[in-house]
Amino acid sequence: MSPPDSRKRLFTPGPLNVSPEVRKAMDRDLGSRDPEFLEVVAQIRSRLVGEVGSNSATPYEAVPMQGSGTFGLESALTSLVPRRSSRLLAIANGEYGRRIERIARRLGIETTLVETPENAPWSTDSVTAAIDADPTITHLAAVHCETSTGAVNPIEELGVRNRDWGKVFLVDGMSSLGGVPLDFSGADIDCLVSSSNKCFQGVPGFSFALVKRQHLEANRGVAGSLSLDLVDQWETLEKTGQFRFTPPTHVFLAFRQALEEYRIEGGVEGRYRRYRTNQEILRSGMERLGFRPFLRRSFQGPIITSFHYLCDPKFDFEELYRRLSDRSCVLYPGKVSEAETFRIGNIGHLFPEDMQALLEAMGTVLEEMSLPIPMA
Amino acid sequence: MSPPDSRKRLFTPGPLNVSPEVRKAMDRDLGSRDPEFLEVVAQIRSRLVGEVGSNSATPYEAVPMQGSGTFGLESALTSLVPRRSSRLLAIANGEYGRRIERIARRLGIETTLVETPENAPWSTDSVTAAIDADPTITHLAAVHCETSTGAVNPIEELGVRNRDWGKVFLVDGMSSLGGVPLDFSGADIDCLVSSSNKCFQGVPGFSFALVKRQHLEANRGVAGSLSLDLVDQWETLEKTGQFRFTPPTHVFLAFRQALEEYRIEGGVEGRYRRYRTNQEILRSGMERLGFRPFLRRSFQGPIITSFHYLCDPKFDFEELYRRLSDRSCVLYPGKVSEAETFRIGNIGHLFPEDMQALLEAMGTVLEEMSLPIPMA
Repeated sequence: MSPPDSRKRLFTPGPLNVSPEVRKAMDRDLGSRDPEFLEVVAQIRSRLVGEVGSNSATPYEAVPMQGSGTFGLESALTSLVPRRSSRLLAIANGEYGRRIERIARRLGIETTLVETPENAPWSTDSVTAAIDADPTITHLAAVHCETSTGAVNPIEELGVRNRDWGKVFLVDGMSSLGGVPLDFSGADIDCLVSSSNKCFQGVPGFSFALVKRQHLEANRGVAGSLSLDLVDQWETLEKTGQFRFTPPTHVFLAFRQALEEYRIEGGVEGRYRRYRTNQEILRSGMERLGFRPFLRRSFQGPIITSFHYLCDPKFDFEELYRRLSDRSCVLYPGKVSEAETFRIGNIGHLFPEDMQALLEAMGTVLEEMSLPIPMA
Repeated sequence: MSPPDSRKRLFTPGPLNVSPEVRKAMDRDLGSRDPEFLEVVAQIRSRLVGEVGSNSATPYEAVPMQGSGTFGLESALTSLVPRRSSRLLAIANGEYGRRIERIARRLGIETTLVETPENAPWSTDSVTAAIDADPTITHLAAVHCETSTGAVNPIEELGVRNRDWGKVFLVDGMSSLGGVPLDFSGADIDCLVSSSNKCFQGVPGFSFALVKRQHLEANRGVAGSLSLDLVDQWETLEKTGQFRFTPPTHVFLAFRQALEEYRIEGGVEGRYRRYRTNQEILRSGMERLGFRPFLRRSFQGPIITSFHYLCDPKFDFEELYRRLSDRSCVLYPGKVSEAETFRIGNIGHLFPEDMQALLEAMGTVLEEMSLPIPMA
C-alpha cells in the first residue's frame, strides 16, 4: 500500500487523504441532468442502502444532501421531527452530541439533553432514566462515534432498549459508518446520517441519510426548509433520478470511485481492521513518546484518538502542529471541554507505515522542542 | 483557445465545463483547518468582495456557504429577513423568481409575489404598484438573470427606484455575477447571492453572499437554521478564518484557480464579451437552422438562450438530446411554464469554436431526424 501521494498526510477526521484515483475521478465535467451522472447517483444510493445489511425486512432509502455532515443532520431533524408534536431526547458525551441539541433548538424542536462525561461512552441507563421521566419524548438522537474524543457509544444496546420504548431513533453516524461495524436492523435505527468524507474516504461536499422509507412517506411537508427538505429531495430523486438543486458533480464522481475502493478493501470489516491497526500503532507509539490518551483503552474507538497536552512548560501545541506540518504531518486540534487535548485521526488513505512515519516525525519534533521522551 | 478537454461540451447553465487547470487544482487533499487552506479561503473572500467595485463607500462582506445556489439563497433569506417583523416582496418572471417565494414561504416569511410574463424582463413599474399598495413591505427580492429563460432583469433600475423606498434589497445573481456587468453600489444592493459554478467557472459545491456588513451585524441570531446561518458563518470566518462545518476543500481549491483565470480574462468585462459573442453565434446559427428563440433579441441576456421546440411532428427533444449527447454536446431541458422550450447555455469554458461545433452537430442531427432545415 502506497503512502498518500498528495503533499501532506492528514491525521484528521476529515477532510482526509483520499486515494489518487478518487481525486482523479474528479477530472471530468458532467452535466447534473445527464443520464451518465444520474447513473452515478443511482449506483451510489444503491450501494449506500446496502450498508444497512441485506437481512433487513424494513426497506431503507439512501438520500444524499448537499453540504457538510451538519447540513445532513439538520436536514434529518427538520424533515423527520415535526416541530409541533415532538420532543427530542438528545444524548451527548461531547461536542457532536451537544450539536444535535443546538440544531434542534434552532429549528424550534422541544429538546431534552442528557449529558454524560466526555471521557467515557454514555450508558443506556442514563438514557432510561430520562425516558422514564418524560413520557412526551417522541424522538431519540445520539452519536455513534463521538469525533471530539474518539469514544464509540453503545448504539446497538440503546437501539435494543428502544424496542420497548418505541421512540423514533436518529443516529449521527458521521465518523463511524463504513469504519465501525453497526448492526443496523438489530438496533432498529430509523435514520442514520453520515458523510462523503469520513470512512468511505471520498472528498467533502455532501452527506446522506440512511432512513426507513416509512418515515419519509409519513413526513411530507414537515421540513421548515426547502434546501434541507430530505423528503422532497428523496421524492424528486425517486421520480426523476435528478437532484432538485445542483449537486457537487465532481464530488459524486469521486465518491463512486471511493465506494469501489471500499468494496475492494472488504467493506466495513476491511476498513475496521486497518483503522484498528493504525490506531493501535498510534496509541502505543504515542504512549512511548510520553503522551497520555484522553480515553481509557476499552473506551477507545478506531477512528480518532485524543491525547492530553504534555505537562511540560515547553509544550506548545501550536508549535508542535507547525513543526509536524512542515514534516507533512497534519494534526487536529482538540474539542474536549474538560481537558486540554489534541487529536490524531487515522482514517482515510493512511496505512501502518504512515502511522510509523508520524511517530518518527513526532519523536524528532519533540527533541527539537527539547521535550523529554521517557523511553528514548 | 482550446476546446474543453473533458469528454463532453456542456451547453448548460452549470455545472459547466471548467478549464483543465481548474479541475487539476482539485488533485490535492488539504485539511480544512490548515493555514494553507485558510489562506485559500481568505483570498477567495477578498477577491469576491472586489466584485462589488472599489468605489463603494459601504463595506461589503463575502460569505461562502456550503451547498448549491439555492442553499445560499435560503441562507440569505433565513438570516437577513427576520420572520416576525418582515414582509418580503418577491418579483418573478420565471422559475427562479418563483423559487425565492417558495423558499420564503417555507421559512415562514410573509411574502407577496409580483409575477410578470416569462417572455420579457419585469418592469420596475409593476413593482412600484405593489410597493405603493402595501406599506408593510420591508424587503425586496429579485433575480438578475432569470436562468429559466435567459432574460436579464433591470436590477440597477429597480435599485435606483428603491433608494426612495428604502427596502432591504436582495438579489439572486446566481447566473449573472461575473458574466453580466452590474453596478453594485449604484443599485445599492444589500445582498447578492451567487455560486461557484456559474460565470466564475468553478465546480459546484458552494455559493456565496456579497452582503453589506451592517446587515450581518444587525441580524445576529435571526436565522432559523444552524447550518444556513449566514451571520454565524461570517462571524466564525472573521474570528478564526475557519468554517464552522467542513467545507468542500477541493471545490475551494478549484475556485481559487477559477478566479485567477477570471482575472486573466479581464474579469466581468472579458467574460461578458466572450459570452455575448458565443450567444450571438448561437442565436443566429440556430435561427438559420429553423429554431425560434423564446425571447426577443432586446430581452436576451448573454448567459443562456431558450428556444421553442420545432413545430414538426418529427421533432422529439429527448431524441435530439440523445443524438447530440452522442456527439459530445449536452443541451439543457426547458423551464418555461407557458411554452415548450429547451435551453442552450454558453457560459463556462466554451469558445466561439465550441458554439460552431454545436451548430454543425445540430445540423447533422436534424438531417438524421429528417427535420427540414430552412436555409440548408
